[in-house]
Amino acid sequence: MKIRVGGRKVDMKAVWWEGGRLMLIDQRLIPDRLEVVSASTVAQAVAAIKDMTVRGAPSIGAAAAYAMALPDARKIGIHAAARKLKAARPTAVDLANGVDYMLKMNIDGADPVLAAQKFADGIVRECRQIGGHGSRLIRKNGRVMTHCNAGALATVDFGTALAPMRVAQRQGKKPFVLVSETRPRFQGAKLTAWELLNEGIAHRVFVDGAAGHLLKSGAADLVITGADRITLNGDAANKIGTYEKAVLAKENGVPFYVAAPLSSFDRRMRSGTDIIIEERSEDEVLAPDGRMIAAKGVRALNPGFDVTPAKYITGIITQFGVIRPCDVKGLAKRQGV
Amino acid sequence: MKIRVGGRKVDMKAVWWEGGRLMLIDQRLIPDRLEVVSASTVAQAVAAIKDMTVRGAPSIGAAAAYAMALPDARKIGIHAAARKLKAARPTAVDLANGVDYMLKMNIDGADPVLAAQKFADGIVRECRQIGGHGSRLIRKNGRVMTHCNAGALATVDFGTALAPMRVAQRQGKKPFVLVSETRPRFQGAKLTAWELLNEGIAHRVFVDGAAGHLLKSGAADLVITGADRITLNGDAANKIGTYEKAVLAKENGVPFYVAAPLSSFDRRMRSGTDIIIEERSEDEVLAPDGRMIAAKGVRALNPGFDVTPAKYITGIITQFGVIRPCDVKGLAKRQGV
Repeated sequence: MKIRVGGRKVDMKAVWWEGGRLMLIDQRLIPDRLEVVSASTVAQAVAAIKDMTVRGAPSIGAAAAYAMALPDARKIGIHAAARKLKAARPTAVDLANGVDYMLKMNIDGADPVLAAQKFADGIVRECRQIGGHGSRLIRKNGRVMTHCNAGALATVDFGTALAPMRVAQRQGKKPFVLVSETRPRFQGAKLTAWELLNEGIAHRVFVDGAAGHLLKSGAADLVITGADRITLNGDAANKIGTYEKAVLAKENGVPFYVAAPLSSFDRRMRSGTDIIIEERSEDEVLAPDGRMIAAKGVRALNPGFDVTPAKYITGIITQFGVIRPCDVKGLAKRQGV
Repeated sequence: MKIRVGGRKVDMKAVWWEGGRLMLIDQRLIPDRLEVVSASTVAQAVAAIKDMTVRGAPSIGAAAAYAMALPDARKIGIHAAARKLKAARPTAVDLANGVDYMLKMNIDGADPVLAAQKFADGIVRECRQIGGHGSRLIRKNGRVMTHCNAGALATVDFGTALAPMRVAQRQGKKPFVLVSETRPRFQGAKLTAWELLNEGIAHRVFVDGAAGHLLKSGAADLVITGADRITLNGDAANKIGTYEKAVLAKENGVPFYVAAPLSSFDRRMRSGTDIIIEERSEDEVLAPDGRMIAAKGVRALNPGFDVTPAKYITGIITQFGVIRPCDVKGLAKRQGV
């Protein structure tokens, strides 16, 4: 991704390998400031995953793969390192994928740094392919609504949901992006808007409650969001607030797309009803950005994500092309995912 | 409304007359602290309306009526006072109603303080009637979703959308209220939750983006919101985020009610498409609760309210009973509103 540092633009990833260490953009500080932190031990990598220095399932997976390549991982033992890393955030499937990939490469006798690099490059390549397929859905001066951050920060580079806008911009289509602020953690206002600003893509942030009004008033030609997990029947789990945008898009005749690599496909789950919704801390709701706004004694509900049934999803933008939700199972089988 | 002050519960209004002055709860400080401010001049009343010390259209209307009864209003001239007050917030129809009522009472030779009192009492009486009719929609342990603050703070006392929950609680039905935080100004998390806490009503605050998930998962039996304006065909304008909750309620088979006195009915407007949506400051979005969270250069859209088409509204809870949106025109005509 392009990032303005001082007066000039530099090309940077969210996660990379440099000087024998794992390097990360500290995402907790974006957009206030750009700081790069490094990890030279597995413990440091685990801490960075736990405290959300690195966030976004694919970025976490790549960070874990690089951590497995650290000299320290050999020192403490490759299987002990794998256990520690997998336990850092047990819910993210990409984390386990990154670690398991490195264990397999170890058995195969591959160079660990090259293997980790290959894993991270694979993520970015898929994002670029998603961007290529998705950009065909965006017309010149097209207006796209998105939710949360499924951008370069979340995916090492390029992004999933943001990839089509990035490609469209480079194609000279001048897309305009409507970004929901994404309460409770404001990833839209803080991260996605920052990425778009750096890329020079026109945008506006809006509160989640305005999505319906904007879709009804014709402000967006299409909606593209990411997905944490796609089930056998094509249902998609993603950040809380995704489901309602899908319903409101359908109600107003606006196409709704999910952008995700096939690695998000979970063949152990028949449908979205199999997914247990994580209930997160009440303070994320009651103390936005850390400052308590509600009276002492007020309680909150904080479901972390929601499930969008396949019937609201116009298409899934994968690295192999745009498919119908009902075709995801067949495609995954054909591609051996 | 009941408010806990120190260790005991007191009964208080948002707006009242005392010692020859207009008294107001400073709503900007809720829930951090309870402070009462007074106005003894029209200029002070205008300032309190402008700076949102008093908010909520009915509360503003009552404050303006009391301001017209201040000795200062005679001193500067009743028509000059009326002009100054009406200009304080030109969009709120209740404000003009309160001022015009006082001008009429002046022609009739009524005592101004008694007249203003009668105007404010009329608002509260209608709220109590709305509460009585609306409470019949709430079963024992019923779960009601609401949006923004259409409570006692907004309506002198008792509330419109909150009135049914208040009555249900007093009837021993123990309602449970799901409160959307209502970005950008957090009136749900700050004001509605505070009112419910004081009234001892069980509740949970949620981010606006979670409304769809909660309605889909059966967390609410019905939705009740207020309305700023109801048009001839039964469309309702209200705080941004209302429309999407109505669509999501319908999609999930949950009844959606609007609670509003007939004074919110605007016979000059054929339908919601006649309403121009106010675009408010970008900072309300980008700097939640006053602290900037987005990168410098990020832009926002901030529509202040939205329109819910009549087809999504199960019923309108008025002071005369619960009616269908298509019957509002006839009822208003019969009641001479």
